[in-house]
Amino acid sequence: MKELAYYDGTIGTPEEVTVPFNDRVHFFGDGVYDASVGGNHQVYLLEEHLDRFYSSANALGIIIPMEKDKFGRLLTELLSKVEGNTHFVYWQVTRGAGARNHVYGEEMRGKLWVMIRPNLLKDPNAPIKLITMEDTRFFHCNIKTLNLIPSVMAAQKARKEGADETVFHRGDMVTECAHSNVSILKDGIFYSHPNDNYILRGISKTHMIKACYRLGIPVIERPFSVSELMEADEILVTSSSNFCLHANAVNGRTVGGKDPVTLKKLQDEVIREYLNYTGKESLFD
Amino acid sequence: MKELAYYDGTIGTPEEVTVPFNDRVHFFGDGVYDASVGGNHQVYLLEEHLDRFYSSANALGIIIPMEKDKFGRLLTELLSKVEGNTHFVYWQVTRGAGARNHVYGEEMRGKLWVMIRPNLLKDPNAPIKLITMEDTRFFHCNIKTLNLIPSVMAAQKARKEGADETVFHRGDMVTECAHSNVSILKDGIFYSHPNDNYILRGISKTHMIKACYRLGIPVIERPFSVSELMEADEILVTSSSNFCLHANAVNGRTVGGKDPVTLKKLQDEVIREYLNYTGKESLFD
Repeated sequence: MKELAYYDGTIGTPEEVTVPFNDRVHFFGDGVYDASVGGNHQVYLLEEHLDRFYSSANALGIIIPMEKDKFGRLLTELLSKVEGNTHFVYWQVTRGAGARNHVYGEEMRGKLWVMIRPNLLKDPNAPIKLITMEDTRFFHCNIKTLNLIPSVMAAQKARKEGADETVFHRGDMVTECAHSNVSILKDGIFYSHPNDNYILRGISKTHMIKACYRLGIPVIERPFSVSELMEADEILVTSSSNFCLHANAVNGRTVGGKDPVTLKKLQDEVIREYLNYTGKESLFD
Repeated sequence: MKELAYYDGTIGTPEEVTVPFNDRVHFFGDGVYDASVGGNHQVYLLEEHLDRFYSSANALGIIIPMEKDKFGRLLTELLSKVEGNTHFVYWQVTRGAGARNHVYGEEMRGKLWVMIRPNLLKDPNAPIKLITMEDTRFFHCNIKTLNLIPSVMAAQKARKEGADETVFHRGDMVTECAHSNVSILKDGIFYSHPNDNYILRGISKTHMIKACYRLGIPVIERPFSVSELMEADEILVTSSSNFCLHANAVNGRTVGGKDPVTLKKLQDEVIREYLNYTGKESLFD
């Protein structure tokens, strides 16, 4: 099949599968998710994504109704059913189904969802454009929840303004993007917001930091400001779908482009890791 | 029928009606809602709830695919199908259906949902118990969105601790409750948080304020602190399902109970308004 949807044991296309009216996601966005790239029908960094997924669910007291190993095997099995070589592999758990009520029975068992579709990774050599926006989200950004309206609004604003992503800042402090992490290179040092409750612990970012250490690039995880972003040698935007993009514009002003050598080393390193893991020849094969 | 569900033109019981996999509510909680009491098959304060509903949708650029008057008539028609005399009438609009993507086509038409079920109003003479909790929600609480995980967690915490509702505070400033507004009486004056982006503009609260003016009770809309809450003469908790409850405990400490005469006047006034509107004899008939 070309695209796959799964809900609580039922498999079909996204057009075929339906969801009961009383799933709590309908009334509260009550669920958490995770996602990765499928390369050559392997879910990239599956174990780490599952660990984060089960941690997100645990943080909200959501019971995932399947053991981690078994669910990992299910994801790989579902991925094998979808045509193509590169996929977006997305999954979520909602708290369960029941009459709308803020409170819930603590024994309620979650509903598992999967969605898999073809994906095209972006060319890491092509710079992207950013805008900035005050971060008005809640204080649980470390949990990968389905309460994403502020990110939707920020992503839509970027598109309307001809940009690719929106950098959030709380006052002057940069946090992350609408659906990516953002880090900077300055004077050979890699800076990124620490893994507190203002940002999601990005798995691609974690791997980029490990790549920095392998390459001898010092890493400082601390909040940085909007001015530091604007004055950075390079601005790096990472997500589970795009391991290391770089920006050349913020709010229409030219930025970055001052340390292309370090940028290229880092990009090559994280891409090499992906190709090794999946046995692919290139990002685009 | 005993309970009714409606999704995008389909009517059934909540067990019968299903929702397409690709409704954006599934991935982003991308929608807004409103709710009221149905008394004698009339939606209480229908026009005001519809005005708030269409305003919430408008704030997020969600297109409600039906004119306000027509949707109001639909709600009343659906309410007429459900047995009983007192109902919870709930409705929402989600942004639409489409492959998961933060960005959306601005012409996307929303999906309307309705859920109606029997309701029992609480006895206004029975005091309720509160707990307090830091308000970690986003900064769009003036919009009645489906991004409600923090409210779910707060309501659940109240239940676990044997309380009825949770009062949120940002630092020392009281905002509102998990699913109600909170106001206080002190020295004959009614205090409540102003209608900024930290709280939902409660329709029951608005009507209680109008009742204050009719009764000659001065109203000051300004933020008040947790200590002011604890020292208040009366603590009033209002929602569209319960027009004027009062608390006698916060975090296990005895509170309120010092101005029962004003409390009773206010309760009688807002209940009288409901009975007049719906033609009911009492809250419980």
